[in-house]
Amino acid sequence: MNKKSGKQTIAYAAPPFLVSAAAVAGPMEEQGLLGGQYDRILEDNLAGQDSWEKTESLMLELALNTAVNKMGGALDDIDFILAGDLLNQLMSSHFAARSLGRPFLGLYGACSTMAESMLLGAVLVDGGFASMVAAAVSSHHDAAERQYRYPTELGVQRPPAAQWTVTGAGAVVLSREGNGPRVTAATVGKVVDAGLKDPNAMGPAMAPAAADTLWQHLQDTGRQPNYYDIILTGDLGQIGKTLLIQLMQEKGVDIAANYEDCGLMIYKEEQDPHAGASGCASSALVLCGHAFPLLVAGRLKRILLIGTGSLHSPTSYQQKETLPAIAHAVAIEA
Amino acid sequence: MNKKSGKQTIAYAAPPFLVSAAAVAGPMEEQGLLGGQYDRILEDNLAGQDSWEKTESLMLELALNTAVNKMGGALDDIDFILAGDLLNQLMSSHFAARSLGRPFLGLYGACSTMAESMLLGAVLVDGGFASMVAAAVSSHHDAAERQYRYPTELGVQRPPAAQWTVTGAGAVVLSREGNGPRVTAATVGKVVDAGLKDPNAMGPAMAPAAADTLWQHLQDTGRQPNYYDIILTGDLGQIGKTLLIQLMQEKGVDIAANYEDCGLMIYKEEQDPHAGASGCASSALVLCGHAFPLLVAGRLKRILLIGTGSLHSPTSYQQKETLPAIAHAVAIEA
Repeated sequence: MNKKSGKQTIAYAAPPFLVSAAAVAGPMEEQGLLGGQYDRILEDNLAGQDSWEKTESLMLELALNTAVNKMGGALDDIDFILAGDLLNQLMSSHFAARSLGRPFLGLYGACSTMAESMLLGAVLVDGGFASMVAAAVSSHHDAAERQYRYPTELGVQRPPAAQWTVTGAGAVVLSREGNGPRVTAATVGKVVDAGLKDPNAMGPAMAPAAADTLWQHLQDTGRQPNYYDIILTGDLGQIGKTLLIQLMQEKGVDIAANYEDCGLMIYKEEQDPHAGASGCASSALVLCGHAFPLLVAGRLKRILLIGTGSLHSPTSYQQKETLPAIAHAVAIEA
Repeated sequence: MNKKSGKQTIAYAAPPFLVSAAAVAGPMEEQGLLGGQYDRILEDNLAGQDSWEKTESLMLELALNTAVNKMGGALDDIDFILAGDLLNQLMSSHFAARSLGRPFLGLYGACSTMAESMLLGAVLVDGGFASMVAAAVSSHHDAAERQYRYPTELGVQRPPAAQWTVTGAGAVVLSREGNGPRVTAATVGKVVDAGLKDPNAMGPAMAPAAADTLWQHLQDTGRQPNYYDIILTGDLGQIGKTLLIQLMQEKGVDIAANYEDCGLMIYKEEQDPHAGASGCASSALVLCGHAFPLLVAGRLKRILLIGTGSLHSPTSYQQKETLPAIAHAVAIEA
């Protein structure tokens, strides 16, 4: 049975049910626009750990445990965990997986990893390889800051195009059996490089990748943007969002009416995140904390989540390389 | 249809054919035990690039292109590329994927990534999500050395337990149609941490993970070790290999007769790799350069490739963490 649709899209034959989701957020995130919608909140950025990296790992573990608990299940129900994060060697995911003790598959798609883990998790379930899988990601502002940029304590002034890495983690459980929202389709992205070089302006570097994947998704499925109640990109921020609308307009597709970026849904303007939020947890918090309950309640019927990732590294930047980017799209329908 | 067998194993229903494989090796590897069996050889460790990281990316691209060419195909035949490497943010894979322009999924399982990419690639093909996928990995001694340890040019003396990261890349093509060897089963590993702390002795840290996965594979499939002509671990090296034999003996399983480690098959003793070879390319070169032609020729009928990965990072080491490890097993039968 052919479940590939068009050039880059998977059409699940028995769409896996999204039976649970959990969001763990930092204190700054709880003060933001979606405050009150997260399952667990850290009291501070360390939460009793002795490094930000270990705190991030704790959040991921908490998100996975909470997602499993919310559905009244146990970790042993999960056949495979698919997870990733921004830290070198996926430190956060691997140390969480060590505690959780379930079969584990590590993924890296930078900030697109929530979508990547869901699309591959749905492949495992739809293909009959698993009854139930968990897909999860995390990011931590302070840990990302010192790995990608400067020592966090230095408090270096950020340029206006910079985005603020979200401190948080999100996990979903995908199941063969269930009811409620289902993952119905996914479009796997290509690496797209617009030739931009500024690692403090990732939105414009990722927008062309998002446009490429969204355009292909619409071609492969024969859908119009208004098929979805909302199209959500992961973390393009203000500059990237404006650019994506423009890039789609140039292809003759108007998305302005039902398009939003998760990077603009997390923080209030007075929290001064500059161009918006970023990080694996940007799309994860909006999906798990905000959209999932709306899907379950029937207040959202169809969403397209487009995870967006800038694939550069500090090393590639130092070697004067441009910023390659990727976007993966996942359709969720109630 | 349930394709999960036992606790952690996937039994492919329509086992994907391994229709092509290609190995790209560095000059030191060509001087080693498998010299003459690789498809492409670098003239030196840079191969005209201006950094080792870019050379690694070039090798990966070359391996993928060569694998596709060897089967008389074109890149456009490949629905999805699944790849990973040891560099932070998968620099090598992402820059190769940028050139190749095919839908891309990034994976990180340290040196277990060849097995991880093959098992997920086979899931995509067997599940009907793709007709043909490519799975690939790379590593580069000089790039890994400076990222994980000391500046490469410093030439720091290596302790006897240290292994030598292989400079090379391997790629396979998995297809729904074809003939010859097929990927018939795979066991997804758990993260196992034996509590060891020395990042210069990864073999003993990974051996318990390999034992865990191999034991579970035998349980899940009801097979004995002699079901396979050869069981190959990825890069346990001399110390890890001895330990794995011992750990399996303690479980009442004797693997000594038909077990080998890829890390001991790459270099000659006089090349002084210390405890053996390591890196994503260790298992990839042995599989693509050595085992694949033997499988095609019918001189090997059944092999079990167990990719082994130490999941620590320089940051986790600095934070006094132990070395978590993982192993994924892939059964290939002619």
